[in-house]
Order: sequence, then structure tokens, then C-alpha cells
Amino acid sequence: MSTQQDNNFQAIIAHAKEYGFVFPSSEIYDGLSAVYDYGPYGSELKKNIKDYWWKSMTQLHENIVGIDAAIFMHPTTWKASGHVDNFNDPMIDNKDSKKRYRVDHLIEAHAAILEDQGKQQEADALLQEMDALLAKDDFAGLKKLIEDHKIVCTISGTCNWTDIRQFNLMFETQLGSVTDEASTIYLRPETAQGIFVNFLNVQKTARMKVPFGIAQIGKAFRNEIVARQFIFRMREFEQMEMQFFVRPGTEGEWYKYWKQVRLQWHLSLGLPAEKYRYHDHSKLAHYAKEACDIEFEFPFGFKEVEGIHSRSDFDLSQHQTYSKKKMQYFDADIDPATNKPYGNYVPYVIETSIGLDRMVLLILSHAYEEETIQKEDGTTDSRVVMHIPEKIAPIKLAVLPLTKKDGLPEIARDLMDECKNYFRCFYEEKDAIGKRYRRQDAIGTPFCVTIDHQTKEDNTVTIRYRDSMKQERILMSQVKDVVMNAIA
Amino acid sequence: MSTQQDNNFQAIIAHAKEYGFVFPSSEIYDGLSAVYDYGPYGSELKKNIKDYWWKSMTQLHENIVGIDAAIFMHPTTWKASGHVDNFNDPMIDNKDSKKRYRVDHLIEAHAAILEDQGKQQEADALLQEMDALLAKDDFAGLKKLIEDHKIVCTISGTCNWTDIRQFNLMFETQLGSVTDEASTIYLRPETAQGIFVNFLNVQKTARMKVPFGIAQIGKAFRNEIVARQFIFRMREFEQMEMQFFVRPGTEGEWYKYWKQVRLQWHLSLGLPAEKYRYHDHSKLAHYAKEACDIEFEFPFGFKEVEGIHSRSDFDLSQHQTYSKKKMQYFDADIDPATNKPYGNYVPYVIETSIGLDRMVLLILSHAYEEETIQKEDGTTDSRVVMHIPEKIAPIKLAVLPLTKKDGLPEIARDLMDECKNYFRCFYEEKDAIGKRYRRQDAIGTPFCVTIDHQTKEDNTVTIRYRDSMKQERILMSQVKDVVMNAIA
Repeated sequence: MSTQQDNNFQAIIAHAKEYGFVFPSSEIYDGLSAVYDYGPYGSELKKNIKDYWWKSMTQLHENIVGIDAAIFMHPTTWKASGHVDNFNDPMIDNKDSKKRYRVDHLIEAHAAILEDQGKQQEADALLQEMDALLAKDDFAGLKKLIEDHKIVCTISGTCNWTDIRQFNLMFETQLGSVTDEASTIYLRPETAQGIFVNFLNVQKTARMKVPFGIAQIGKAFRNEIVARQFIFRMREFEQMEMQFFVRPGTEGEWYKYWKQVRLQWHLSLGLPAEKYRYHDHSKLAHYAKEACDIEFEFPFGFKEVEGIHSRSDFDLSQHQTYSKKKMQYFDADIDPATNKPYGNYVPYVIETSIGLDRMVLLILSHAYEEETIQKEDGTTDSRVVMHIPEKIAPIKLAVLPLTKKDGLPEIARDLMDECKNYFRCFYEEKDAIGKRYRRQDAIGTPFCVTIDHQTKEDNTVTIRYRDSMKQERILMSQVKDVVMNAIA
Repeated sequence: MSTQQDNNFQAIIAHAKEYGFVFPSSEIYDGLSAVYDYGPYGSELKKNIKDYWWKSMTQLHENIVGIDAAIFMHPTTWKASGHVDNFNDPMIDNKDSKKRYRVDHLIEAHAAILEDQGKQQEADALLQEMDALLAKDDFAGLKKLIEDHKIVCTISGTCNWTDIRQFNLMFETQLGSVTDEASTIYLRPETAQGIFVNFLNVQKTARMKVPFGIAQIGKAFRNEIVARQFIFRMREFEQMEMQFFVRPGTEGEWYKYWKQVRLQWHLSLGLPAEKYRYHDHSKLAHYAKEACDIEFEFPFGFKEVEGIHSRSDFDLSQHQTYSKKKMQYFDADIDPATNKPYGNYVPYVIETSIGLDRMVLLILSHAYEEETIQKEDGTTDSRVVMHIPEKIAPIKLAVLPLTKKDGLPEIARDLMDECKNYFRCFYEEKDAIGKRYRRQDAIGTPFCVTIDHQTKEDNTVTIRYRDSMKQERILMSQVKDVVMNAIA
């Protein structure tokens, strides 16, 4: 990340806090590492993104239904999914500082230093060697790599390391108080398994026919060693996932379909195509057939915001094995090859999984601008403006009587009453109008309407557009529809 | 609960499962005690309740803003709130069965047996004595009470009890992996503290003036010993809370105000007033000034669905003490008594707290009817119908072409395309129309529209109303507005 980019990212984080988007969690107690709270505007933005996703995935897709499974699940779920055995990060401790590091992060940090020193080739070689060793779970080799490169702990400055060990990322807790009943359960590290274990219940009760999808929004938890980059990687986070169940053999076409539809979803918010790219995975999990990330250019570079995975029948088959319940679907459609119904099978799965918090960060990153304004008198002014897409802006309309008297607040109140049932409005009658505009810019309100003395004469108001700062007079009776059309 | 009521409740639970409202969590692994998952229709119903609450509390109240705080909070939060020290249930173990009981539940169960035996007076006396001992934390006295009444364990049948001990209801987990950093944190047992610790951040960033409120919807967790009655008391549950901050001395009027406004919210859904009642608390927590429950008549009797509490400045003051941060508000309004600003104070709080899962259960209980239908030919028929309020029904409109051919599906598709952007629609072209109506009744869809051959001639359709089962012909072009008006 260049200094410029870093400054920009720091400015976004500061702005998010100052304007009520994101606060460090429990800040009065000096915060909790890698956990954040959403403030008044952040919580509205987050909710609007959720609603937009939910509507586009369920309401607009007849063959997708939702569920809302609990965070607590039967512990065998995580045995079946492989998380108990495989959801680990290799870790290493410095014996002097007692500080623990994720091995890949430790090595990557060293590679970044090499790059800064202009030793690009050496850095690339190091990373390549690391990848090869990680792929083989060769911990002795990794430790040797760290020692050979004399990678030191930033606290102690020494190269005095323990052996590398695996560390499971799931949070544990105890359910039940009755001694013989109490059992260790996990906070779910992903929402997907809540969909898989409910596959039969959903398919039967909603009478779904393959191909169909199950969508879910919910919290997941990972005890990340190094949680970084603000709300990009948190220990408590929210996912918006959809598992799409298809007939084996059709997964290729559905994978392509969802890859395209999901990118389109991002662009439908008016986000710039040039900031997006696909990143196809070359290294795949053993059960995956194809996988790609939709990446966005964050201030710290192109990073994953959503993943599309062709997961085969791995998860359903695993649950079938562990639960001894048939996770099958009977397909009555006629197979042209045999002229008989396709019959029973375990469906294949295409997953689309988007990080809700990352999506909020994406919007904040995209929206934030420190703009220099050329004024007509030749001088310049500046403002911070959040170009949040209208559909998901926390506040849609600010209603601003020019003064607190002459009956202007009463007229403004009438407009509020007309509009507030349809979308979130903001009312403010104090301070100079320019100052009020700036505050709305800073929280991303797309429309401001000013009621002035002329309003009393001709029922017109000044509507001011956030992005262009243009102002025009329109009839007060048109305001509601202008906003409604923009957010439809 | 009478047998009749119990049968009814069991029927609701069975219906909720069969029609995709609520499933036992991880059912393929035989479930997880007191944890449930919401299915396709349950998740929509729950989301609609959330949205209705959120809109009425934030969008329609200018002086209430939302937040979305993390489930993980700094552990000192729960020291300050009193949960670490006081959020306990007194428990007793039977030495023979090793079964653990909550003391009050054990005694209450015995009182219920006495009642069934017609020994009402004895039961009342027992409960009265229990309350007195619980109020004094007199555990020796409680144990003696159990022994004196020869209350036995239902498993072992013996009266061989351990001493009574306190058991904290918070779930614990370990945050962080770095040995010296790892700390015990709790899953929040209530959402309220996320609001209190963010009080200053919210007040400042959203520039709120007292009186104002902060609303939040989110998960909370309690390791309930005896979790009961389906989704009424779960170990993982969701709350919709609002903390309203007021000037000390005005809490009485605001308490009355919210008590009334919150009941009105329930009634605004068209729920019957006679099934609601207030239950004013006579026993108050030491910090509370007034408290009441809004109770609803569930199949198992009148029970709390929402609480309104006048909490004084207890929580903010506690956080002030523990965090050493001033949790104060400067009130610039002029106090008529002194002619000076009210100045700095720690605001008082009125809390409204509603259990979202309970609200879902309330709706299911209210909506469920096994109806006998008098037919015109003198015979009777029956149906199960869910009278879910239109505004929050999972599916608003079913679009049903009478047959699969003659171009009727195409017309139905046009209607779907017109409507599905505005509300959730359901399309079905298979099975007899009567059977399709019944299925929509069972999931509470308020409107069904049938496209038949006459539609091709005059663009009319049959609209069929769930509750009355009345049918009438209207223009297809009116369908969208009929539904929109009903859910507005």
C-alpha cells in the first residue's frame, strides 16, 4: 500500500468513526481487537445492503428461498464439514517475546520489507517457496525457511522460534449446565452449513425443485490470529450466502451463470466496473470443481469481496455420512439419454458468498471523496462527500427549512410527514444552509430540499443533488417521486 | 395449560415445522436443545417483523437512531452491568440422577402438582415462601423447603439433593490465540449494553439532543437451564431493543408514553386487544424505578412478550465508574426553576425490549386456526389457515394459472413480473386450484389470484381472500394496488 493509499484508507476509517458509520467495539473500554460496532449511519447502510441483497436473491428469484439458522449448531456438523480437523492456521511463537504469529503472515511481512528494499526477485522467490511448503503442510520446512531468511519477531527482534503448530480458528463454548449434558459447541465459522443441514427440511416444506437455492444472512466467527484492515477481516462478521442445488453434470453452466449474475449485482448498484475483477483460483480445495473471487480495488489493493464456488456434492455427502440421513433429491424429469427419470441423487452445489462487512467497506471506500470545488469567484473550497449509491444511502432526503421562523418549519414538517413513511428522512433547522449541506454530504444523503420564503408563494423548493451539487427549483409535490424514482 | 390448549400448542409446533416456519436446529443430528432454525416462511416472517419494528422505531421517529453493535464486547462491560456477579440462577443437583434443576422451576413444578391435586392453598403457600427465600438469597432455607416438601427428582425419584449453588447464565469463549493476549469474553446476554457503551459515540456523531433513543436488533445468548416452550425461551435468541435517554425527572412521563406507544405498535398489526394486558412489576430491580411487561395470551397462558423498564441512570453510571469516561450529556435548554441551562447530567433511560422470537411465536399462535367450513351443499370441510397480518405475511400474493396451457402461464408470468419487484409473490401452476389455495392458507398468504380463460377475454382475474375465502373478479391491472394498499 503506497503512502497515498494508506493516507486515504486512514482518512476513510477516521471519517467512518467521526460520522457515525463504524466505531471500535466497546471503545470506552479501549476496544476489543478486530471487533467493530456499526453506528447510526453504518447500521442503516449495512441494513440497506442486506435488504438489497435479500430482495435480489429471494424476492426476484422464484427458485430461491431464505432461511435463518442459529449460530449454535450440533457439534457433529463441524466434524462433517471438516472444520474440526482442518480449519487451522499454522502458527509459530517467538520464545523471547511470547508473541504468536501466523506463519504465512510472518513470511509475507518479510517479503514486503524485501520489496520496499527493491529486492523484488528475492521477495517473489520467498513467497513461492512458502506456497509450496504450505501446500505440503511441511512445517519443518517452513520453520527452516523462516530461520534461513533470519526473519525476526518485531517485538523481541530475535529469531528464536518454537516449532510450528496448527491452531483451530473456531470459537468454543459450553452449552447446557447440567453436568452430564454440557457439551462443547462452536460458534459457526461460516453460515453455509446451516443451509446444508436444513437441505431436506427446506426442499420438502417449500416444495422446491432442483435447480433451486437457499439464501441466508447471518453472523459467523473466526478466531483470526491477525485480524486486519479495519472491518475487512474481523473476528465477528456477517455473511450473505446462497447455496444453489443443481443436478450433477450441470454445475459447470450454473457456476458460469452465478459468476456473471453476482458481478452484475455489484454493478447494478452503480459501482464502477473497472474497480472489479475476477480472480479464478488455480489452487482448489479437494472437493471444489471451480472457484473464483470477485475482487474489488480497495485502498489496500484488489481483494476478495465475494466468492463463487462449485462445491460438488461434498457437503451434503459428508452430512449424509455423519448423520446417516439420506441427503438425496428425487428428480422426476426425464433424462433424454435413458428416457427415464433422473431419479435419486445428491445435488451438486454452487455457492455465492459475500462478506457483508467487506461490502460496507467497499461502499465506504468507493464513496469517500475529498473534493476540491472551483467556485465562480475563482477561489476554491473543499468538501468531504460520500457518493453512496442512492438505493442504499442511510438517509435519502434531508428536509431543511432555511430559517427557524416565518412558518418555514411548519411547511418542512408537512413534507417530512408526506415522505417519512416511504424512506428515511432527516430534518434540520439549525445552522447556515451551506453547513447543513456539508453535513449531509459527509453521511452520503443524495437529496437535500430547502424550504424558503418563495416556497410560501409558489410551493416550490430548492432540491440540491449531492454528487453534482447542482440545485434546482421543483414543486414540493414532486419531491417524494424524485426520491422514489432514484431509489427504486 | 389445559389439554385443549396443549393440543393446540402442539399443533402449532407441528404446523410450524411442516410448513417451513421453524425447524429444530441441526435436526439431522437429532437437534440441539433449545435452539431452533427458521425455515423459508419463518425467516420471511421474522424479517418482516424486524423491518416493521425498525421502521416504526427509527424511520418514523426522527429522534431515534439505530446501531448494530457486535455480539462480542469487552468483558468489563459485563462487570459494569452486573452480569458477571449477578446473572445467576440458583441450581440444585440430585445426587442420584446427577440431574441439575433450577431451584425455582423445581419448586414451581411441585406447586403445579399440588394444584392439580386440588391443594391450591398449599401450593400458594409454597410459592410465597419460595419467593421470600429467593429474595433473601437464602439458599439453605430453599434447600430445607425442598426437603420439607419432599420434592423429588423426576428421574431418580429421590430427595437426595446437593447444596444450592449459583450458576452464571452467560456463555464464555476465548478471544485471541496469542497466549498472553487471549481473554475470556462472553456472548452478550442482552443487546442493551451495546447501546449504553456507545452512548457518547452515537449522541455526538448523530448530534442527538435529549430526549432521544437508540434502537438495535440483534442476537443474545443465555445458557438457560430449562429452556422451554418451543421458541418462547431459547438459548440463542434475538431482541429488538430501544433505549430512550431522558432528562432526570422526566422519566415518569416517558415511561407512560412508551408503555402506551409500544402496546399500540402491537395493535397496529391488527392483533386483538383482548389478548394483551400489562403486567406491572411490584418487585423491582434495585436500579429500576418502574417496570412492566406487555403480556400476550399464548396457548400456555399470558406471558411476557415485551418489557418496558424505567432503568434510571444505573447503566450509564456504572459504565462511567468502570471506564472512567464521563457518560454525560450537556443540556443547553433553560431550566425555568433556575433560569440557567440544565447543564451536565447522566441521562435516565426508558427501555423497550421485545423478544423477536417470542413475537414470531405470538404471530404463529394468533394466526393458527383449524377452521370448519360450512359448504353450500350442507356438508362441511376443514382447513388450516394462518391469519398472519398482511403487512408481515411471508408471501403476499400467489399467482395461479388455472391450467398449465392455453397461454395462461404466460399471462400469469406477466403479472408476476409486474408485482415481484414490490412484494414477495409465489407462482404455482400444478395441482387443483382448491389444493393450491389450501397450501397458501397454510403459510398465511393473504391474496391468491387465479388466471383463467376469461382472463384472456376481459383481463379480469379471480382474487381470493385468505381470511374470508371470498372470491371476486377484478381487473388484472388492479391486483398490484390491492396488495400494496393492504400492506402499506
